[in-house]
Amino acid sequence: MALRFGLLGAGRIGKVHAGAVAATPGAELVAVADALPEAAAFISKSSGAEVRTIDEIMNAKDVDAVLITTPTDMHADMIEQAARAKKAIFCEKPVDLDIARVRRCLDTVAREKAPLMIGFNRRFDPNFMEVRARIDAGQIGAVEMVSITSRDSAPPPASYVARSGGMFRDMTIHDFDMAAFLLGEDPVKVFAVGSSLVDPEIGKAGDIDSGSVILTTKSGKIAQISNSRRATYGYDQRIEVHGSKGMVHAENMRATTVEVADAQGYRREPLLDFFMTRYTQAYANEIAAFIKALDAGKPMHPSGEDGLKALAMADAAMLSLKEGRQVDIAY
Amino acid sequence: MALRFGLLGAGRIGKVHAGAVAATPGAELVAVADALPEAAAFISKSSGAEVRTIDEIMNAKDVDAVLITTPTDMHADMIEQAARAKKAIFCEKPVDLDIARVRRCLDTVAREKAPLMIGFNRRFDPNFMEVRARIDAGQIGAVEMVSITSRDSAPPPASYVARSGGMFRDMTIHDFDMAAFLLGEDPVKVFAVGSSLVDPEIGKAGDIDSGSVILTTKSGKIAQISNSRRATYGYDQRIEVHGSKGMVHAENMRATTVEVADAQGYRREPLLDFFMTRYTQAYANEIAAFIKALDAGKPMHPSGEDGLKALAMADAAMLSLKEGRQVDIAY
Amino acid sequence: MALRFGLLGAGRIGKVHAGAVAATPGAELVAVADALPEAAAFISKSSGAEVRTIDEIMNAKDVDAVLITTPTDMHADMIEQAARAKKAIFCEKPVDLDIARVRRCLDTVAREKAPLMIGFNRRFDPNFMEVRARIDAGQIGAVEMVSITSRDSAPPPASYVARSGGMFRDMTIHDFDMAAFLLGEDPVKVFAVGSSLVDPEIGKAGDIDSGSVILTTKSGKIAQISNSRRATYGYDQRIEVHGSKGMVHAENMRATTVEVADAQGYRREPLLDFFMTRYTQAYANEIAAFIKALDAGKPMHPSGEDGLKALAMADAAMLSLKEGRQVDIAY
Amino acid sequence: MALRFGLLGAGRIGKVHAGAVAATPGAELVAVADALPEAAAFISKSSGAEVRTIDEIMNAKDVDAVLITTPTDMHADMIEQAARAKKAIFCEKPVDLDIARVRRCLDTVAREKAPLMIGFNRRFDPNFMEVRARIDAGQIGAVEMVSITSRDSAPPPASYVARSGGMFRDMTIHDFDMAAFLLGEDPVKVFAVGSSLVDPEIGKAGDIDSGSVILTTKSGKIAQISNSRRATYGYDQRIEVHGSKGMVHAENMRATTVEVADAQGYRREPLLDFFMTRYTQAYANEIAAFIKALDAGKPMHPSGEDGLKALAMADAAMLSLKEGRQVDIAY
Repeated sequence: MALRFGLLGAGRIGKVHAGAVAATPGAELVAVADALPEAAAFISKSSGAEVRTIDEIMNAKDVDAVLITTPTDMHADMIEQAARAKKAIFCEKPVDLDIARVRRCLDTVAREKAPLMIGFNRRFDPNFMEVRARIDAGQIGAVEMVSITSRDSAPPPASYVARSGGMFRDMTIHDFDMAAFLLGEDPVKVFAVGSSLVDPEIGKAGDIDSGSVILTTKSGKIAQISNSRRATYGYDQRIEVHGSKGMVHAENMRATTVEVADAQGYRREPLLDFFMTRYTQAYANEIAAFIKALDAGKPMHPSGEDGLKALAMADAAMLSLKEGRQVDIAY
Repeated sequence: MALRFGLLGAGRIGKVHAGAVAATPGAELVAVADALPEAAAFISKSSGAEVRTIDEIMNAKDVDAVLITTPTDMHADMIEQAARAKKAIFCEKPVDLDIARVRRCLDTVAREKAPLMIGFNRRFDPNFMEVRARIDAGQIGAVEMVSITSRDSAPPPASYVARSGGMFRDMTIHDFDMAAFLLGEDPVKVFAVGSSLVDPEIGKAGDIDSGSVILTTKSGKIAQISNSRRATYGYDQRIEVHGSKGMVHAENMRATTVEVADAQGYRREPLLDFFMTRYTQAYANEIAAFIKALDAGKPMHPSGEDGLKALAMADAAMLSLKEGRQVDIAY
Repeated sequence: MALRFGLLGAGRIGKVHAGAVAATPGAELVAVADALPEAAAFISKSSGAEVRTIDEIMNAKDVDAVLITTPTDMHADMIEQAARAKKAIFCEKPVDLDIARVRRCLDTVAREKAPLMIGFNRRFDPNFMEVRARIDAGQIGAVEMVSITSRDSAPPPASYVARSGGMFRDMTIHDFDMAAFLLGEDPVKVFAVGSSLVDPEIGKAGDIDSGSVILTTKSGKIAQISNSRRATYGYDQRIEVHGSKGMVHAENMRATTVEVADAQGYRREPLLDFFMTRYTQAYANEIAAFIKALDAGKPMHPSGEDGLKALAMADAAMLSLKEGRQVDIAY
Repeated sequence: MALRFGLLGAGRIGKVHAGAVAATPGAELVAVADALPEAAAFISKSSGAEVRTIDEIMNAKDVDAVLITTPTDMHADMIEQAARAKKAIFCEKPVDLDIARVRRCLDTVAREKAPLMIGFNRRFDPNFMEVRARIDAGQIGAVEMVSITSRDSAPPPASYVARSGGMFRDMTIHDFDMAAFLLGEDPVKVFAVGSSLVDPEIGKAGDIDSGSVILTTKSGKIAQISNSRRATYGYDQRIEVHGSKGMVHAENMRATTVEVADAQGYRREPLLDFFMTRYTQAYANEIAAFIKALDAGKPMHPSGEDGLKALAMADAAMLSLKEGRQVDIAY
């Protein structure tokens, strides 16, 4: 029988997941809730899901799993309520911006034995999955150094920045998770620098828009992350992993393979510039992995613990940025 | 209201189109027919389309358009029957292997004023569409020379070859259409060579598996085509167009952007090696273009005439191969 | 002891070879002759070579080998004179534009047992040498099809065209030699088309500036050549060889590996656009190979026969172009 | 008149420079000195330079400029002696491993008004020069972030490591200079991490073989450097610069452009794996720039100050590595 989903939050990312569920055999979207009736109605219309309240979805017998895509400050409450209601849970990152709250939430999840997956979608990008697969296949030997480039195509409005928790918690958190995923060993120390070079308003809002981070593990592995809130040439998402036997890297994606050559040179098009088009396949794979793990009764990855770890790295990076020193990561 | 399709032929390519219709907003598959009941049943199950006979679909009031994906020798009959039944028609290439039969069929279509699109899917590949768009935008000036590389990943069985009409009519026909599409001027002469280098059984069956073709237009434009029935590294599909101001080319596609570097060098993965994965987007775009043209009451492209032209080039290439001389193409 | 060279012809290509000799350990340029005293003086000044007459060089005891870089119509006479004078001979392509004259010349060379290398420099390009080496190493299995792209950056003046022997003899002759070099089997038939698309003056002078050629061997191997007298993006020199196990290709060369990315896309620089910069290393390797073969007393490659074969292909292509049919190559 | 060079130190790098002088019009190597007579003799033989003592060269009237390629611990003394002898000075990096000694040495140079260039050869690599040129041309707007990848193909022997001054002073020093060169603003703070992952003997010798560094400038620009003493795929030398309008990067170099495709994928060859082949052109350009600046009476770049700055960054990185904190760079 198909796995029946309830969607909590019908905003932009909610639509992405609703579409992924619709396109996945063995999955069905039966209900959707949102504070904005028209947002819920929009998804209802395209998917056939019923508009309900959050509580109705939580208590529904015809809902096996919930997709939590509400605003961040509701995530932890929603997770706890769903865990108590014995639903399987997929929640967008982060669990919460406050790590103590995350810990309490994960305690509840553990107590209720609720299956929980955190939406670090990039782990499911076909390119990055293949990088991980090549490492697992031993093609580069033991992992030594990881280099992640992650640059948004355009900065968010300063208003968004103000309530985002800061660039490290909002944007780099994906890279922290990716670093741990690729290193195969939890980073124990972090050093971070950052500047506001792209948009002075972001600086005025107390945040940075350009940053560089170094993570190290106990055994001496090193990961570096380069971030910017702006890349005129598209959404720049690359990884490179060096091992004892070689190197593996994944390059950016474009809409086509076309190149024009003339007296000015050879010109390829800019990169896919939006996370939804860049990571279309990742979002689909993510939902499929959630269903597969649930069907098989296997542990979920990325887990709530993975979410907590990434946030711990982000918090430590914030402190490092503030104090100009390497900081121990407190998981 | 959605455009209602009937599918005639539930084989491999029938499934591709059924899937494309299912994924296209504004389109619905309502009926499917096939000589093999289980083939029709398979598509019925996945799509909800009703299994019917061909005649039932042709006469159905709830069917606006037919997708003809039967064996080639039925195409012309199906087109004529559908034209008389006032259906819009999408037919896989070729209309028929006998050009006289194609002409009679197109006469019927013209008489009945039936909308007809021929399934030269490659025109709808995002890469090749973009090449055409760059030409139209004037980025390379006036087109002078076209170079098409089209190599299958593996040869078909000799049994298939025997009833295929020969490589030029079966495989190169796509490249003939692409050449005309890119040259923007109909080729008037063709020269072709061919050999059986890949599989001796293909040679014994009287066909070739490796070939090279030169087309020329009245104004002196030149297109060259390189074909093989085998490419160990995947399905090799490239085009390159030279103009007075520059060059535009479209490269092959891979599943990922991953590359591994070690002491043996830098290694990217082989190409996508199957036409269905390579041209997934092309098949979807093709159906969307059919619906769009129908909605707008605009002429269809590629038209029946385009199908006839490609076959005329293939026939002339067969004659050229046989006689070792350049042959005038008889449209 | 160093091999002592005399240079006959101090034009553009003469300077290239003079430079190559100067840069080659074990080689020394001792004399130079040219009808234009200032041309000879220029090379004398930069190299220390003595200015002499052709006859003085031919008869000199301190000259072991001659480099013939005179105008084409003197090549055959120079070769014969040098052969009789017991010099080792390096001669720029072609031996002559008249194949009967080439045959007589090669008879003389054979009779005198003179070592003779013809300057098909591209065989010594590091990229193309590596392609040949990969074939020899069995990396692509048995060679089946060769594709050569050879496009000049800008057309020569019509005045040059008039006395060039035609594009096939002047420009494509390099590609004919390369095709034979890569096929590993002499082509037996040729088909050629051509147009004047680049410069109407070239058409008025009775020549073509754009062309496409198909060569076939007895065993059914196929080579195709695409030529143009103009490529706005640089000097386009690529080869691609398909075999039973795979494919090997060599791409173009640029001055740097730099790429700029911005909102308009990713832009690499145009290609090296001049044969002297593109083939700098090939010219050096060519002279080194000449010296090495001479030292070892081994046969020279490309030989006078190779020169004759390439001209035979060009002549057959001229006839094919004229008569619109495939032509047997008369070696 | 040609600029007359004396070479002090006839080791590996001395030979490189001797070759560069020989190949440069307007330059002449007249004398060579080395503690090992056979080393000096070797260069004397190939270049025609006279073998002399260091003092003889310093005092020679026929020597305009000295190339200092002795062991590092002699550099500062040689520079001072040459400055007093009124020679123009080209010295390999670093001036000294002790920054106080460097300062005293540069004071002497300043007092004597001696022209001094430090051999940061990478600034003269055609690729990296072009990156700088594109920045200067405004193609990427204001520089914001620099990313340098610099990985040796194989680790040096532990014995070398012991007297190298440590990886940051020996290897990364090139990257420190490159970072300053590309940022266009001196870094003021540095943070560095490092591990011994490649060769345990290097760790036992008290050094690291893998490292990552972040530099920041007063205005908030950021540079990151990734180093390893081993890259199985060749000598990995890449730079990437991000600006307000776009990005420019320079990729690695290979001996050829050849790629083989088969069922295992597409394979390019490993990188050039030796600094002498990778930077051949850089060494030639460097000497040419020295001569040009001297002729024009213009300031030398990279200057003694540039050498001091790079060492100051390396020293600060050593301290950062030791203390796990960001360190102010003391120029």
